[in-house]
Order: sequence, then structure tokens, then C-alpha cells
Amino acid sequence: MPAPTKFTTYIDEHADGFIQRLKEAVAIPSVSGDPKHRPDVFKMGSWLQSQLEQLGAQTKSVDLGKHVMDGHELQLPPAIFGRIGDDPKKKTILIYGHYDVQPANKSDGWDTEPFTLVVDNATGRLIGRGSTDDKGPILGWLNVLEAHKALGLELPVNLRFCFEGMEESGSEGLDELIASEAAKGKDGWFGGVDAVCISDNYWLNTRTPCLTYGLRGLVYLKLTVSGPSRDLHSGAFGRAVHEPMTDLVILMSKLVAPDGKILIPGVDEMVPAASEEEKKIYDNLDYSIEDIEEAVGAPIALSSDKSTVLMGRMRYPSLSLHGIEGAFYGAGAKTVIPASVSGKFSIRLVPPQTPETVEPLVQAHILSEFKKLNTKNKLKVENLHGGKPWIADYKHWNYQAGIKATEAVYKRTPDLTREGGSIPVTLTFAESLGVNVLLLPMGRGDDGAHSTNEKLDRSNFIEGSKLLGTYLYEVSSIAA
Amino acid sequence: MPAPTKFTTYIDEHADGFIQRLKEAVAIPSVSGDPKHRPDVFKMGSWLQSQLEQLGAQTKSVDLGKHVMDGHELQLPPAIFGRIGDDPKKKTILIYGHYDVQPANKSDGWDTEPFTLVVDNATGRLIGRGSTDDKGPILGWLNVLEAHKALGLELPVNLRFCFEGMEESGSEGLDELIASEAAKGKDGWFGGVDAVCISDNYWLNTRTPCLTYGLRGLVYLKLTVSGPSRDLHSGAFGRAVHEPMTDLVILMSKLVAPDGKILIPGVDEMVPAASEEEKKIYDNLDYSIEDIEEAVGAPIALSSDKSTVLMGRMRYPSLSLHGIEGAFYGAGAKTVIPASVSGKFSIRLVPPQTPETVEPLVQAHILSEFKKLNTKNKLKVENLHGGKPWIADYKHWNYQAGIKATEAVYKRTPDLTREGGSIPVTLTFAESLGVNVLLLPMGRGDDGAHSTNEKLDRSNFIEGSKLLGTYLYEVSSIAA
Repeated sequence: MPAPTKFTTYIDEHADGFIQRLKEAVAIPSVSGDPKHRPDVFKMGSWLQSQLEQLGAQTKSVDLGKHVMDGHELQLPPAIFGRIGDDPKKKTILIYGHYDVQPANKSDGWDTEPFTLVVDNATGRLIGRGSTDDKGPILGWLNVLEAHKALGLELPVNLRFCFEGMEESGSEGLDELIASEAAKGKDGWFGGVDAVCISDNYWLNTRTPCLTYGLRGLVYLKLTVSGPSRDLHSGAFGRAVHEPMTDLVILMSKLVAPDGKILIPGVDEMVPAASEEEKKIYDNLDYSIEDIEEAVGAPIALSSDKSTVLMGRMRYPSLSLHGIEGAFYGAGAKTVIPASVSGKFSIRLVPPQTPETVEPLVQAHILSEFKKLNTKNKLKVENLHGGKPWIADYKHWNYQAGIKATEAVYKRTPDLTREGGSIPVTLTFAESLGVNVLLLPMGRGDDGAHSTNEKLDRSNFIEGSKLLGTYLYEVSSIAA
Repeated sequence: MPAPTKFTTYIDEHADGFIQRLKEAVAIPSVSGDPKHRPDVFKMGSWLQSQLEQLGAQTKSVDLGKHVMDGHELQLPPAIFGRIGDDPKKKTILIYGHYDVQPANKSDGWDTEPFTLVVDNATGRLIGRGSTDDKGPILGWLNVLEAHKALGLELPVNLRFCFEGMEESGSEGLDELIASEAAKGKDGWFGGVDAVCISDNYWLNTRTPCLTYGLRGLVYLKLTVSGPSRDLHSGAFGRAVHEPMTDLVILMSKLVAPDGKILIPGVDEMVPAASEEEKKIYDNLDYSIEDIEEAVGAPIALSSDKSTVLMGRMRYPSLSLHGIEGAFYGAGAKTVIPASVSGKFSIRLVPPQTPETVEPLVQAHILSEFKKLNTKNKLKVENLHGGKPWIADYKHWNYQAGIKATEAVYKRTPDLTREGGSIPVTLTFAESLGVNVLLLPMGRGDDGAHSTNEKLDRSNFIEGSKLLGTYLYEVSSIAA
């Protein structure tokens, strides 16, 4: 059953208002990974709860307690629960999204202020931190609710909402909350949920909508090498003391090769190679080396074989070095020996890897390499956060509804993909509720989530809002 | 000839006023290496010129033209010249200092605001950026001038001043200026100069004053590896593209070993090993492994042999990795693949090394290592600045005057040391003017120049001001 025409017409006619609401949301710098932005994350949670209330949802702000980040004890941002409808004749869909964002500073290389949504009419882009990850998609659901309320239309399914404010920082507290709500069965906020829909990923390219049935997991580590009690002058102490940067850089150089191979013994080896049959799945995806080179803006693909590149992203683990905290990072030429430096890196995991099986291999390798340095500096290895990889059954009615909705809105059949990123809560929902989870992306492959100049195309925001609504109608009519 | 008692008494009695003046100077964040602080460097130059004028010096602010820093064309801060006295019967001493400072942010780990001078009465420390490097010493000379003006005392020598605002960023423009002034002979600002005195280094320890007759040179390099046109999400692109951080960290790991050995072929090999006789000089210095470990706050000396540590600092080259520009440097766990990353490192040089002989070895080594990476990313190597090492004749009357002045003020004979740091202008003065240059430090070995919590002990500021004045009296009476 397609969505009523007056629904899709409403979405088209109110596009400017929807963009204005997205602008309001982007203006709140809800960076969960930076203690000084914590009040903004709370502000964003309140803003979202108030929007849901105004659009007819019953809501609850759930306290998740405290945690420690970089030595500060901080209150965790709340989970925002919402519910609309209790009709036993309708299916019940649980919607998840996150209202926190990655860090962003104009000085990182943004062309515009990251927390001011810029509408670029020439390119049709809505540019700002969180535009696509994940405020745009969350607001897509608000657009659907607004249209139904304004038009006096009844929603075709019962809806449950679970929005969190710590997704970019390990979703702290959420797993326990979902597990405890799930344990309440019918009486919990997730009672009677038939399936979950998450819009927090991206098309594989800029042309073809997709549904996503797999995600990589993650383990994020911080290696700290400490020596002197304060930064030193490299003239006064160079070649007189063990320098933490020298040690750290050597350790970091032992983690991954320029061709992407992970140098930690046992990590790559956990994943079986793809069979010829499996490789064909990747051969058939609408993707090319030109796509990836256009997305990243340079001819730097690791292989000239499209399927090799896609498998590197989807079905193999990867290790990326993100940066160093505590070293000189500014412009100019500071002649400092930094006292304590922390290398940050993460490994994307695929089945059968888990953080629990991979982390000990990493720890053992780093300790072994550190011993070889024969340094008097101190090493500390911390696991900042992690999550298991996930795979879903794409033959389930939840996926079939997603396919039909995509065909109705975009007039084409979506690709079925696995994604390189990590949304650990996906697995938590699947395991705790025992239901199918669908990833139904709104944005395109070149949106630049986590990057400078993050954007969401205006057309993806508007058509994507139609898609989310249409999906609910398809769910309501499909044989379960 | 010791200084008149009323001079040293004046210095003691006006200590609080001198500290207040230092507070004013530290409050101007004259960071030459950061384009956004350039106006503050100019402000500091004007402040200094005005102080000199008020204390009876004839001055001139010398325009040094423009330069390019991090893509910005900027006006160079002026050199501030000063002169007092033209008595042909007196010797003429040229004083050099610099009014710019290293970068500093409280977030680097300072316990106090870096640009607010904090007087810690418990420890006797004056804490703030520039307190010891080099605003304290410059103000020491102002204190000497103030005392003579207030007391109606005639200065025992003719003085010339040359203060620059770019020392921490390669002293751009100064070499040419000194050469052109020197070429004017008697008619230039440096006409008739008999010797130079520079107070811009530190005691070897916290107990024994020293005179310094050698400095290491420097070559400061920036290695940039660039790949994608913008930062990428490590989930979406990890193991799909060549990552600049992977390449850069491997390159940086090929520069120096944990024991301080420089891995660039030919660099260490340029310096002959110390003879047994030379090693004795280091054995006799007032220094111990405890001194270095106390200065750096940790048991991380590269050797348990004091002379090996001292020679590592004074007579061998060193290579320090300072940090990475463009990578993630903040708190938290950002899962970014940085688009372009620049590793900063520098090599301290000793005779017979020069930037011109060392840089080609570095370039060749880096290019050779980069080829081995087999990456599609791009490499750029930039020489940010450099200077030759320097050695002086410590039997010259200029040094003998420094020794006598130290004995008069501190009641002990100073150590004669070489210094690990770089003050390239020292060599320029020596070569352009053909006169002896004395380094007469004011601060202690644990002052933390270029570091967090930089300090100058109050006693070093006050006794050091007496030392500078007394040195002028000793110069005036010594047989040249």
C-alpha cells in the first residue's frame, strides 16, 4: 500500500519549513565526545523531546546516570523515548536515531561554520555538522509526524521512538537500558515491537538508494606514552631523554600497512576470504572505482578492482590511525618534546570478530612492540569504546517493505549493501528484542559524515522524508 | 671593577616594580609562530621601544618586510634598535634579545593562564610564557638602565641594543639586517661594537651559574602527506583508500630510534666521536643524572652515564618529533581519516653540520622511504627554518668579564658550557661583526622554556639583573 498522495504532497509543500527546523537542530552543537559541549547535548535532547510532544507523541526522558570522560565525571545525556498508537491490529515499529554529533571546528578545514546550516542553492546541499549524521534522518521522522498531524491522517502503524545522545561516543548506558526495557516485555516501552527501523547510514553512491543488512563493529583504542612531567624544550633535552613521541610513532607504525593490511598478528586471519560466489554479490553492486574516487576527491583507491575495494569496506576489518592527543598540532614550528602523547586508532570489525576477541590481540601486540623499544617511558593502553559487527536477514518483511517504499518514492530497486561503519545499537536491538532490524538510509555516499563540510542533499532530506512515511504504509500492508 | 653598591641596592629595593613590568610584558601574547597573534608581536615591539626611550635610549623600529606563513602573507615584526653612549674611551657592547615567545594554551597542560604572570611566593617562581624566554632577560637590561637613570650613574660602556620579534620562528629578515648594518661599518647601528652579549639561555642545573660558548644549530622540517580532498569517515572508507596518517606515521618512525640515534643515513656520521680528553670536560661539569631527572620530572635519561647524557645534549645532533598538524588532536574518540597530515620534526645540529649539508640527506631518506610505501597519496617536504651551530673562544676578555661578574654576584665561578638549543643569530653576529659573542644566561635549567608552566625564579630575575649590570663594569675595566 503506497502512502496517500496528500502525504507526499504535504512533504513537498512544507520543505522550507522542514529545512528551517533542521537549521535549528544543527545550531545546537551537541558533541558528545567533548566534555565542554555536554550541556549542548542535553539541550538537543530537550529540544527533540519537545518536538515529539508537539507532534503528538507521548515521551519520556530517561536518565542514564554518570560516566567518566577524560578525567571528568559527567552526566550522560538522556535517552528520549516516544510512543504513538496502541492499536493491536497494527504492527509496531521502533525507530532509533541519535541526536549527538561528531566534533567539528571551522579550523579543521570547513568552508562554513559547522554549526550553522548553510543552504547552498547552487548545489542543492544542506551543509552543517549533523545534517546527515543523524539530525537530518531524525527530523525526517518529525516531518512524517507533522504531515499526519496537520492532515488529520491516522498513522498506519504504532510507533515507538528511541533517540540517544551518545552514539558518537560509544552509546554509553544505552545497551543496559534497551536490555532492561526488553526484559519488561509488554509493559516496557518496547513492548509489542515487531521490527526496528534505523536511518543512520548512507547510500553506497550518489545515485542508487539502498537498504543495509550488515555493519562492521568497532574497537577504539588510545595508546598513551608518558615520559617527563611536563613538555620539554627539544634544544635543552633532545638526545638526553627518552622522548614519548619517538616511542609512540614507532608503535603506531606497527599497526597497519600502507595497503590496509592489519599488522597485528591474528586480526586479519580471523576473517575467512570471500568465496567466488560471495565475490559476485559485490561485482553486482552499482559501484565503480570512479565512485569512490569522486567520493574522496582523489585517485587513492587501494585497488583498481571495484569488488576488492567494496569488500575492503564491507566484509574485511580495517584499522585507521586518527591522530595524536598531547603533541604539537598547531601551525608554525614549535620545538617541543611533548611530555605525554596519546595515539588514537580504531579497528572496524566483521563477523566473526568481536571487541572481546580482537582487543587481547591488540594489547599483546602493542606490549610486545613496546618491549622492543627498550624505553624508560611508560605505556598505557585504553579501550575507549567498541561494538560487535552485525548481519540481518534481508528476506524478512521489514526489508521487503523497505524495498517497496524505495521503489514507490525513487522509482528504482535499492541495492542491498553492508556498511563499513558501526552502529552498535543495531545489534543490541536485534539481540535484545529478537526482531528484525532494517537500516534505511536517507543520505548519499558523499555526505561526509564525521568529516569537514558534512552535508545532506535537500532532495534526500525531502524524498527521504517521503520514503520513511511510505515505508510505514508498506509495513502496514505487507504479509508478516 | 665591581658595580657600585648603590646599583645592586637599587635592584634589590625595586624588585617588586621590576616584576610588575615583567607582568606587563608577559600579558602581551607575542607568539610569532601563529598568524593570528601577529598583531600582539607588533604590540610587544612597540611596548619595548617605548620602554627603551623612557630609559634614555635612542631607538629605531626597523621594518623587515613581509613573509609567508601557513599560506598567509604577513608583515614581519620589526627589529628594535637602541643606543646609549658614544664615548670613544669606553668599550661598546651590543645586547641582543627577542621579544616574541613560543605558542601556549592553557589546554596544553598549564596550571595557570600562560599569559598572566603568576608570582608564586611559596616557590619564588614567576610563572608565565616568556618569563624566562626571553622577556625576563630583556627586562633585566631595562632594570639596569632604570637603576642608572634613577641613580644618575653613568653607564660604564656604550650600549647598543638589537631586539627581534621572530626568534621563535626562524629570525626571518634579521640575518640580512645585521649583515647590512655591519656593512655600514662605523656609520651603522653596530659601528664600533667590541663584543656582543646575549642572555637567552639557561644554567645547566638549578645551582651553578654558567657562561655558554657553543650552541647547536637547527633544521626544522614539515612532512605533509595528502590524500582525499576532505576528512573521511573511517567506517565508510577504512580499507578502501590509502590513508595519509598510515603513510606519515611510518615515515616519522624511520627518523629516530628510541635511544636517540638518528636513522637518516649520514647525519650522525658527520660528527666525530669525542676524544677521551674532550670527554673529561663533560665529566667535570657540575651535573648529575639526578639533575636531569629532576629537571624533566622522571627517570628517563638516555644513559646512566652523566657525560654521555651531557654530550647527547651539547655535542651530538638530536632529532625530535614535535607533532602532527591536521590529524585528530582533541579529547574523545573521533573516527576520522584525516585528509592531509603534516608531521613536524627538527634536528639539532653540531659542528661541522649545517642545514645546507644535513637537509639533502633528510630529503633523500624521506623520499626513499616514501617510495617503499607504494602509496597513491602525495608527499611534500618543507624546510620551515634552520640555523648553523656555533662555537666561541671562551678565553676572550668578554668571557673573562662574564666570569668575574658571576663571581661578584653569585660568589662562585661559573661552569663553561655548550647548549643544546639554537639561537641562530649568535652565529650571525659572530660572523657579520667579527667580534666575540658571550651567552650570559639569567634563568635556571628547569625553567621550562618552550614548555608548559614556563617560569623564571624571582631570585634569578633580580640577581640576574645585577649580573648584567656588573658584567658591564667588568667589561669596562678588563684589559682588551
